Amino acid sequence: MDREALLRALNAVRDGEMTPEAAAGLLDRAPFEDIGFAKIDHHRQLRNGASEVIYGAGKTAAQIAAIASRMIAAGSENILITRMDPEKAAQVEKAVPLRYEAVARVGVANPKEHPLVGRVVVASGGTSDLAVCEEAALTAETLGSRVIRLYDVGVAGLHRLLAHVEELQSARCVVAVAGMEGALASVVGGLVDCPVVAVPTSVGYGANFGGLSALLSMLNACASGVSVVNIDNGFGAGYLANRINRMKGIGEN
Amino acid sequence: MDREALLRALNAVRDGEMTPEAAAGLLDRAPFEDIGFAKIDHHRQLRNGASEVIYGAGKTAAQIAAIASRMIAAGSENILITRMDPEKAAQVEKAVPLRYEAVARVGVANPKEHPLVGRVVVASGGTSDLAVCEEAALTAETLGSRVIRLYDVGVAGLHRLLAHVEELQSARCVVAVAGMEGALASVVGGLVDCPVVAVPTSVGYGANFGGLSALLSMLNACASGVSVVNIDNGFGAGYLANRINRMKGIGEN
Amino acid sequence: MDREALLRALNAVRDGEMTPEAAAGLLDRAPFEDIGFAKIDHHRQLRNGASEVIYGAGKTAAQIAAIASRMIAAGSENILITRMDPEKAAQVEKAVPLRYEAVARVGVANPKEHPLVGRVVVASGGTSDLAVCEEAALTAETLGSRVIRLYDVGVAGLHRLLAHVEELQSARCVVAVAGMEGALASVVGGLVDCPVVAVPTSVGYGANFGGLSALLSMLNACASGVSVVNIDNGFGAGYLANRINRMKGIGEN
Amino acid sequence: MDREALLRALNAVRDGEMTPEAAAGLLDRAPFEDIGFAKIDHHRQLRNGASEVIYGAGKTAAQIAAIASRMIAAGSENILITRMDPEKAAQVEKAVPLRYEAVARVGVANPKEHPLVGRVVVASGGTSDLAVCEEAALTAETLGSRVIRLYDVGVAGLHRLLAHVEELQSARCVVAVAGMEGALASVVGGLVDCPVVAVPTSVGYGANFGGLSALLSMLNACASGVSVVNIDNGFGAGYLANRINRMKGIGEN
Amino acid sequence: MDREALLRALNAVRDGEMTPEAAAGLLDRAPFEDIGFAKIDHHRQLRNGASEVIYGAGKTAAQIAAIASRMIAAGSENILITRMDPEKAAQVEKAVPLRYEAVARVGVANPKEHPLVGRVVVASGGTSDLAVCEEAALTAETLGSRVIRLYDVGVAGLHRLLAHVEELQSARCVVAVAGMEGALASVVGGLVDCPVVAVPTSVGYGANFGGLSALLSMLNACASGVSVVNIDNGFGAGYLANRINRMKGIGEN
Amino acid sequence: MDREALLRALNAVRDGEMTPEAAAGLLDRAPFEDIGFAKIDHHRQLRNGASEVIYGAGKTAAQIAAIASRMIAAGSENILITRMDPEKAAQVEKAVPLRYEAVARVGVANPKEHPLVGRVVVASGGTSDLAVCEEAALTAETLGSRVIRLYDVGVAGLHRLLAHVEELQSARCVVAVAGMEGALASVVGGLVDCPVVAVPTSVGYGANFGGLSALLSMLNACASGVSVVNIDNGFGAGYLANRINRMKGIGEN
Amino acid sequence: MDREALLRALNAVRDGEMTPEAAAGLLDRAPFEDIGFAKIDHHRQLRNGASEVIYGAGKTAAQIAAIASRMIAAGSENILITRMDPEKAAQVEKAVPLRYEAVARVGVANPKEHPLVGRVVVASGGTSDLAVCEEAALTAETLGSRVIRLYDVGVAGLHRLLAHVEELQSARCVVAVAGMEGALASVVGGLVDCPVVAVPTSVGYGANFGGLSALLSMLNACASGVSVVNIDNGFGAGYLANRINRMKGIGEN
Amino acid sequence: MDREALLRALNAVRDGEMTPEAAAGLLDRAPFEDIGFAKIDHHRQLRNGASEVIYGAGKTAAQIAAIASRMIAAGSENILITRMDPEKAAQVEKAVPLRYEAVARVGVANPKEHPLVGRVVVASGGTSDLAVCEEAALTAETLGSRVIRLYDVGVAGLHRLLAHVEELQSARCVVAVAGMEGALASVVGGLVDCPVVAVPTSVGYGANFGGLSALLSMLNACASGVSVVNIDNGFGAGYLANRINRMKGIGEN
Repeated sequence: MDREALLRALNAVRDGEMTPEAAAGLLDRAPFEDIGFAKIDHHRQLRNGASEVIYGAGKTAAQIAAIASRMIAAGSENILITRMDPEKAAQVEKAVPLRYEAVARVGVANPKEHPLVGRVVVASGGTSDLAVCEEAALTAETLGSRVIRLYDVGVAGLHRLLAHVEELQSARCVVAVAGMEGALASVVGGLVDCPVVAVPTSVGYGANFGGLSALLSMLNACASGVSVVNIDNGFGAGYLANRINRMKGIGEN
Repeated sequence: MDREALLRALNAVRDGEMTPEAAAGLLDRAPFEDIGFAKIDHHRQLRNGASEVIYGAGKTAAQIAAIASRMIAAGSENILITRMDPEKAAQVEKAVPLRYEAVARVGVANPKEHPLVGRVVVASGGTSDLAVCEEAALTAETLGSRVIRLYDVGVAGLHRLLAHVEELQSARCVVAVAGMEGALASVVGGLVDCPVVAVPTSVGYGANFGGLSALLSMLNACASGVSVVNIDNGFGAGYLANRINRMKGIGEN
Repeated sequence: MDREALLRALNAVRDGEMTPEAAAGLLDRAPFEDIGFAKIDHHRQLRNGASEVIYGAGKTAAQIAAIASRMIAAGSENILITRMDPEKAAQVEKAVPLRYEAVARVGVANPKEHPLVGRVVVASGGTSDLAVCEEAALTAETLGSRVIRLYDVGVAGLHRLLAHVEELQSARCVVAVAGMEGALASVVGGLVDCPVVAVPTSVGYGANFGGLSALLSMLNACASGVSVVNIDNGFGAGYLANRINRMKGIGEN
Repeated sequence: MDREALLRALNAVRDGEMTPEAAAGLLDRAPFEDIGFAKIDHHRQLRNGASEVIYGAGKTAAQIAAIASRMIAAGSENILITRMDPEKAAQVEKAVPLRYEAVARVGVANPKEHPLVGRVVVASGGTSDLAVCEEAALTAETLGSRVIRLYDVGVAGLHRLLAHVEELQSARCVVAVAGMEGALASVVGGLVDCPVVAVPTSVGYGANFGGLSALLSMLNACASGVSVVNIDNGFGAGYLANRINRMKGIGEN
Repeated sequence: MDREALLRALNAVRDGEMTPEAAAGLLDRAPFEDIGFAKIDHHRQLRNGASEVIYGAGKTAAQIAAIASRMIAAGSENILITRMDPEKAAQVEKAVPLRYEAVARVGVANPKEHPLVGRVVVASGGTSDLAVCEEAALTAETLGSRVIRLYDVGVAGLHRLLAHVEELQSARCVVAVAGMEGALASVVGGLVDCPVVAVPTSVGYGANFGGLSALLSMLNACASGVSVVNIDNGFGAGYLANRINRMKGIGEN
Repeated sequence: MDREALLRALNAVRDGEMTPEAAAGLLDRAPFEDIGFAKIDHHRQLRNGASEVIYGAGKTAAQIAAIASRMIAAGSENILITRMDPEKAAQVEKAVPLRYEAVARVGVANPKEHPLVGRVVVASGGTSDLAVCEEAALTAETLGSRVIRLYDVGVAGLHRLLAHVEELQSARCVVAVAGMEGALASVVGGLVDCPVVAVPTSVGYGANFGGLSALLSMLNACASGVSVVNIDNGFGAGYLANRINRMKGIGEN
Repeated sequence: MDREALLRALNAVRDGEMTPEAAAGLLDRAPFEDIGFAKIDHHRQLRNGASEVIYGAGKTAAQIAAIASRMIAAGSENILITRMDPEKAAQVEKAVPLRYEAVARVGVANPKEHPLVGRVVVASGGTSDLAVCEEAALTAETLGSRVIRLYDVGVAGLHRLLAHVEELQSARCVVAVAGMEGALASVVGGLVDCPVVAVPTSVGYGANFGGLSALLSMLNACASGVSVVNIDNGFGAGYLANRINRMKGIGEN
Repeated sequence: MDREALLRALNAVRDGEMTPEAAAGLLDRAPFEDIGFAKIDHHRQLRNGASEVIYGAGKTAAQIAAIASRMIAAGSENILITRMDPEKAAQVEKAVPLRYEAVARVGVANPKEHPLVGRVVVASGGTSDLAVCEEAALTAETLGSRVIRLYDVGVAGLHRLLAHVEELQSARCVVAVAGMEGALASVVGGLVDCPVVAVPTSVGYGANFGGLSALLSMLNACASGVSVVNIDNGFGAGYLANRINRMKGIGEN
């Protein structure tokens, strides 16, 4: 897949420094480690700019601990573990160093201090979206972004939002989290000139239909510059916000 | 159904002023006129405070003209005809006096000047909702309400809306018309202390799903005091807004 | 946002009675109190005509108690707390004076006697909608409206409904609560000439789909003057009904 | 499939009156005629109590005419053709004797006078449902039922419906046709003690969603004795109503 | 509502046998008993041909017992109570004579022997639909119909169904209960010439979507003579089947 | 149904070797055993090429054990029992010989060694789909297919999938199991030239809507040769994959 | 991707028969031809066992002709073009040799006689599904399968289907095409022991919802061995059926 | 809203350089121009970093021309007009200088050369998505981004996509456009480390349901760094991609 590596290997073969078989083996060697129930993707950091994240929901504490251990053994730091409930966290903690945030159900294995740069604002419409907000904020922080939290600035009390316009406008990326009618994304989108990542939440009842109302609302946001991630997907929003926040300038690369 | 009328008739029977048969006939005589393809409800004005409205969509020009004629003959003025396209209007105009507004596809048969009272604000998020807005505004005006139009004040350019806060706050009822994400209803709902009637429109594309996004959004509006009518139902909103606008005070009745 | 206040402040600056910085501070001072996990909106009563309501579903008893305490400290009475289960209520009761209605899961913190005015009718189709009905009724009563309860008057036994026509027709606003097919809204809408607020409930099974059948039914109500709030949203209906019920006459304002 | 016929054939074989091959041929001879693009089911009258009906929507005029001709040749009378537009009807008419009703888009090939018995009431909520109503009524009449039409008796003007209670209560089966919120089915279901066949129609707009609102409403009808056919399926309702109307008494069979 | 009663009362008034006030009171006296949390409809038997049925799902055991007691006091026998779980049944049993069937969650208060007439077939596609089937069967039996049960005759093993064609064809009404793809309704509908009441069930998983697949399938049944009740609504099907089964002949009435 | 058997029986009758009654009895004798709550279809192996499978979800342990016992008594081996939780399995195990796999919730009653032939690949996108994968794999193995498991080869790490292209391309049938966006089916479909059976799973959250996202995705797969079974239906996929895998060549039959 | 080719190229490099650059170029040379608006995949036949198919719906006649010409130039025969309306076909015909079937909207460019092998049965429930059926049948035939057409064998007239059981049971793969309730898939699935590919069609009206009813029905088919393709996707079904039909035996490969 | 401007104005008032009334007027002067049917937002460039875009779908050619003229008069260049069909474009062209691209239905009024910077890749799965792709590409170009087009690289022919991995990996933002199953977003998301903006399209048929399948698929994309805009919203994707592409580095600002 990497043309340069391919050429290098081919030159080595031509120069007799490598047998064709070795080259073939090298080329199709998968850059992941197979530990039976999972294939750990150690090269993801190279390809995607961040180490693999452990999605905790469908895994046992033992599985999480095993994967984290291998990643730490392979040199990973600040390994994000999402959707991990407190019981699992307590067990994982016995196996690997772990910092755990119960509200967001997020853990960070092998946590290390690292500088936080840029500016991501996580804004939310109400206190009920807290878990999703914190998942987004902690994800972005773990990946290296500085995060400003603006919670409970829903559009029904517009003055609360307007009181924070300056903070919003100073962001390099805004994560707008809202349930119910999800209007926050449109209103924020109209106030800032950076990318807005909207996260619909399943907070609400009745015709909320598990987050559908906020999802459709955000997809139809009349403001430009807004895009949407899955319902309750705080992790995805924080991950993307970090990616946007940490972009280099065009000339910098 | 009307206890007083019942007592009156019964007294007349007792006093020999009316035969039982006549009374029975009187009592179950339907207060409507059957003209074959429709039953015109002449008494609706008494029961519901407004004369029957003609829903033009499923009717031929000839049917509309016939119903309007009978109603005019029965003394009705300012008879509202909704969802009537220009072709039908041109034909109806030949049969009865008609004022027709093409944008809203609304006609008023036997139009008469009448005083407009109170204050209904019809606010909309964009120019594409014009037809629904005008259906609402003309309905309320035909029924006797003064209407202020605030169009193109969508939430993505919040300053446009905020520039009109005073007008919004002076309303006795606001009709908030919006397609796409329908956030206008929530934002307006947070700014005023009168009832807000939200009208989702089918304007938009993609995940708008024929107005579903705005509908769900408005039903989930985080502001209190907001209720919703059917998608694109400008008539229903204008009708209800007029009813609210013209309410008497508690002591006045 | 308030032009008069703005002018007053500007005049004070011009007259040297206030520094520009103080004025700027005054103007953008948010009329809410930030208590960490929430921003309490003390000015809402001024803007919206009712004090902020505490939505209890997503909050801990401690959070509810904290918010209520601050509001009481700021002078609020009859503070409505919705969707609060009995366990939370028992805890909140220890912190603030509380009247609690278990069926509706509604609490009133710092309850005070106040006169009830006007006339709101809450009508329902069956006994299973009781919780939603009572949420609506208690909300309207807490906000100052007199409420008449007409429960179990579903359309399948029309005579039960017709026996109460007079009560219905004496209302200034009717809240029509119904699950299943939600026909009550249409039938009531055809009998009265005041605004009807329809509340679909999730009562039913099968193709009820969590209240969708009643919701769609009510949005499509063939009677005019009917608008709809979210599924099971008794609070929203009671809040709006109170707003409508307490409207002043056009000349009274 | 018919045990008696099977025994008879087997006896004939045993008695030498029929060869086994002939018997086998007889037994698996399909009771239909294959005319290439269709297999005409001549025996349906025996099995189902009515001759096969031609669903005109997906067929050319030539195909309809061909099927009808064969059926007439096989002795069928009063052959119902549904969903046939006027253009096709004009062409079919040239090939076979045809009575055509444009409103219902229903034709009857080889029409013969026949006695109409019993009493089916077709009731509808508005004039816009006329096509569906007439499809139901003409179907039932073609199959031999006497039909009473009660159109425009929607629930928003309850007195119109109540004026016809006696007619409703005299029915052996009521077909309740309604679009929008479909409340008619529930209300009628509460007034009569015969089976009610509800037909949701796609009449309406917005959150009607092509008849979904009326469909769900009718499925959730709170009155007992109500069942539902497909949206706009006037034919299905008329067919079933005829079947119910013409039932014999338990002892009569 | 009853013209004869009206005439009789009016004659009594005319003849001085009744005061007008008494007549008015008589006429609008609701034929139900208000016991606070419910209005018992004692006249339903007259109007609808069956005594009121108690829907147990949303009621406490005490409420069920209270309603049943009043109905028994008013002379009702064989009072059907649906959706009552065993715990409630055990409590109700202490208050009133009760026969309870746990599979169907159906109780019969004040049970009396009565003759079962006619012939209703309840057919189902699998053993998992048993609860719904039994609700239908017990409902029909309680209301006086003889019921034949044909369970586990799903279309995937057509020979099982075909082995019972004779029983199916002897029915006066078939209740076809099926989950998953609901094909049973179409297949049965093609085999019989009596009305078929189809009951979709929520049995299944995945794209069954809580019974939606069977519901849509049955509404679209290609066989004529089929109508549909709500998902899992065994009671509704049994009630309607009994009504159809017990129809008198046209001449008999 | 079987013409040959019919002819044979008819010949026997003609030749006096069988009475007509016996023949009729023979012909309509259902090839199943009625054990009250179920009708066991012993002939299914002849018709469908595999013995009847016991769907454990809606049955008690006692019922499962009873059916399995009868089938074993009738000579069945390797009887598949799906959707059986560990508690039931423990009970069934006491009645019949059973091999149970907890992850897949699959049991095999009366398990016997048998040769595994051909090559079915079960591929999945993540570790969370394990239960569905194993249901598919064990089903295919129990029915006689050799199965290769390729788990955790989701499309977001394409190299993991590409490392196994050879294994994929050696399959006679691939079962592609994926939740979330279900892209695996399309990607695999583009890489192989054997039939691909896609199984959407309900793994995911938010706009996954219980598997709907993967289902729609797979139905719309842009690669040819892909078909889809129900959400989470590992059994159905394994059953079909076995059928395809074990096909004979055209000349072989 | 092809390990053998990789090794061969690497050996050539080692042996000095190829420069490394040439090898790299060779290896990542895409096996497709870029003609601007499309990339023609000439190697698909090798990978997928059939030449690329031209999906005509979104392309102009000129684009279709251009792609077909290049493919013919590259040696392709019997190139399938789907969803091409007659107007486009008339134009394409001028550019390349074309056989066109209007009912199925299918064209075959550069048509050549080729032997048809095996046995695919295409069965349908009604005449309205003809276009989809023929798309399936012509696709399978163009790709080399012998096809038996069994049209109009819907489940409402079961005898029509049963008359063809032998033909069904002789198939190596059945394509079951049905709209409305889609029951055909389940019934056919219960009768045969070969794979069944179900195609839901959008034929129907009302609660058919564009094919949704048949789609859900087929996904929930209670018979095993059934899988489903997209609504109206006759091509996909025919393509897959051909792939299954032409499978070699396990030993044959 | 701008604290600095506020302070400046207040200082001017204090210093007697401005009357309080003038200041108030200045402060609430809306930064838009009201031309009757629309309010043009001239300040949007300041707030949002791009001049207002004209959404052409709901506007007449005359309205579009009028808005564009005013904007040009106010100094705007390269004014984007989306969803404008060729007929309207021809008329608009007469009023203002216009460059029009028919495939994308995009116009640029008052077009000027400007440098294109950075690197946005627009990738699509098939040729049928061309219109949406071009809307995205032209939007990004008009706003100043260099765009690389990679069309027809769908996942069913993975080698076509893999041949362009280098181009994908060189992007600062990828717009992934796909209909049908939308798998492109996941696959691309797994290959790059820049933000991916996914655009579901309504291309497809059957269970595509107007783009729903691709929408849900993309929302559930298993790759991180992917967010989604509305169905067919090429403009929104291009707008956001430009915003991301043109981000400055953290130190640069």
